[in-house]
Amino acid sequence: MADLLLGKPVLEDIKAQLLSANLQKKVVTIGFEGDAQWLQYTNALKKNSPAFGVEVDNVLLDEREDIVNTIEKYNKDDSVGGIMVQQPLPKKVANAVESIAFEKDLDCLSSKAVNALYRNQPNAVCSATPQAVLELLNYYNVSVAGKNVVIVGRGYAVGRPLALLLINNNATVTVCHTKTRDLSSVCKTADILISCCGVPNMINQNHVKAGMIVIDVGLSFVDGKTCGDVDKQAIENIVQAYSPVPGGVGPVTRGCIFKNLQKLITK
Amino acid sequence: MADLLLGKPVLEDIKAQLLSANLQKKVVTIGFEGDAQWLQYTNALKKNSPAFGVEVDNVLLDEREDIVNTIEKYNKDDSVGGIMVQQPLPKKVANAVESIAFEKDLDCLSSKAVNALYRNQPNAVCSATPQAVLELLNYYNVSVAGKNVVIVGRGYAVGRPLALLLINNNATVTVCHTKTRDLSSVCKTADILISCCGVPNMINQNHVKAGMIVIDVGLSFVDGKTCGDVDKQAIENIVQAYSPVPGGVGPVTRGCIFKNLQKLITK
Repeated sequence: MADLLLGKPVLEDIKAQLLSANLQKKVVTIGFEGDAQWLQYTNALKKNSPAFGVEVDNVLLDEREDIVNTIEKYNKDDSVGGIMVQQPLPKKVANAVESIAFEKDLDCLSSKAVNALYRNQPNAVCSATPQAVLELLNYYNVSVAGKNVVIVGRGYAVGRPLALLLINNNATVTVCHTKTRDLSSVCKTADILISCCGVPNMINQNHVKAGMIVIDVGLSFVDGKTCGDVDKQAIENIVQAYSPVPGGVGPVTRGCIFKNLQKLITK
Repeated sequence: MADLLLGKPVLEDIKAQLLSANLQKKVVTIGFEGDAQWLQYTNALKKNSPAFGVEVDNVLLDEREDIVNTIEKYNKDDSVGGIMVQQPLPKKVANAVESIAFEKDLDCLSSKAVNALYRNQPNAVCSATPQAVLELLNYYNVSVAGKNVVIVGRGYAVGRPLALLLINNNATVTVCHTKTRDLSSVCKTADILISCCGVPNMINQNHVKAGMIVIDVGLSFVDGKTCGDVDKQAIENIVQAYSPVPGGVGPVTRGCIFKNLQKLITK
């Protein structure tokens, strides 16, 4: 039976680090009224924040308000260390992310932040979910350097930034996607297989081999239940270790948002 | 014996396309006096430009002149369709590339241009060398979609932008580098192997297999001779086709600079 790479202890570790760091600046989230998912996400962030010793302000605009002005206000506010902006934004204001000051771009949304990650600059801050994958692996003493890492998914939220982050950390990275031929053969070349394609239970016994580490970053809902990309029952007797959904990368992501705040403040 | 994927006919094809397109705007290169390599490069560009029906102006600054002012002047100049800036720039002015207008960034140097490539935006313009690899493959009817493409090299001039370009074009992309373990095994998983690591003759019979297509993007000088990453004699009786150095991607790159001008003008 494979080892479980659970997120909870990683999160507790991050909490302890951040509490002792005593971060003095807050996080501001900026979004529009009426986006239920964003509301749920930011409410949870605010609720969780005291455990990290961090204050979160959730700013909700009505559609007539100017989001660029709002972002610029918080760029100038010294009490604010990090700014997150609703994703995706309504199309006509999608470019507002370019207004986020590089020094406060908590979620790697602006061109400058993407470029810093692409160029492996020392002040680059990667978005929380890809960062959480690396934190989880580090916590369980799995080094990515020199390993063959196969990523299933080339999205902008996880696949692409994760590929850059892992190349920067000396992994040999393969990016697969819907157009990949013979996905199962490519997956089997991995020492570490990371799925972030959002197709429930797609990764099964045909994609894994003995000794492999599997990280599930999928998040779907099937019959009202949270479900990942990986069919756990199909792989758990084959691979060396895996991180499940729920309970794996998800909790670490919450921690990485606040860890990114720390990076922004101290960089 | 493997087929040779030569750059010359690709270049001639690009010349014919661009001459008939009759591009009405010019390219301006901006660099500093005293950089012999830049001088040689831009002089060759200017010399070649009439064959594409394009005008090139080479602007050389002395070190006291403000490069940002110069860039901004050409941003506003309607007769200029594309701007290239010396790479690498002296460290203290390296950030000047951020001043290049997105609409005139011929070489994908600014954050906005990198971000457009990363996000696969329709108006993205990739730098000429990675673009030339794709042009060469397209010319010889080698589709990258669904293929396993292994890139040896993760540099900012070729490896990284090429990885993004190929992911955008539906290839399954693996990025290898100095920290890759068992490079030869990883290379052998490729349908298309592209080397851009700059180590002369590093790719040999141990890295290839029958049916493979090999693209050499290396450029080194050994005993006064131009030399690529691929040991031609070691692979030519094994692989299906390869593009040599000199005579492969290099000439196509020259064409892609002017093809990028066309993209910028018409986008």
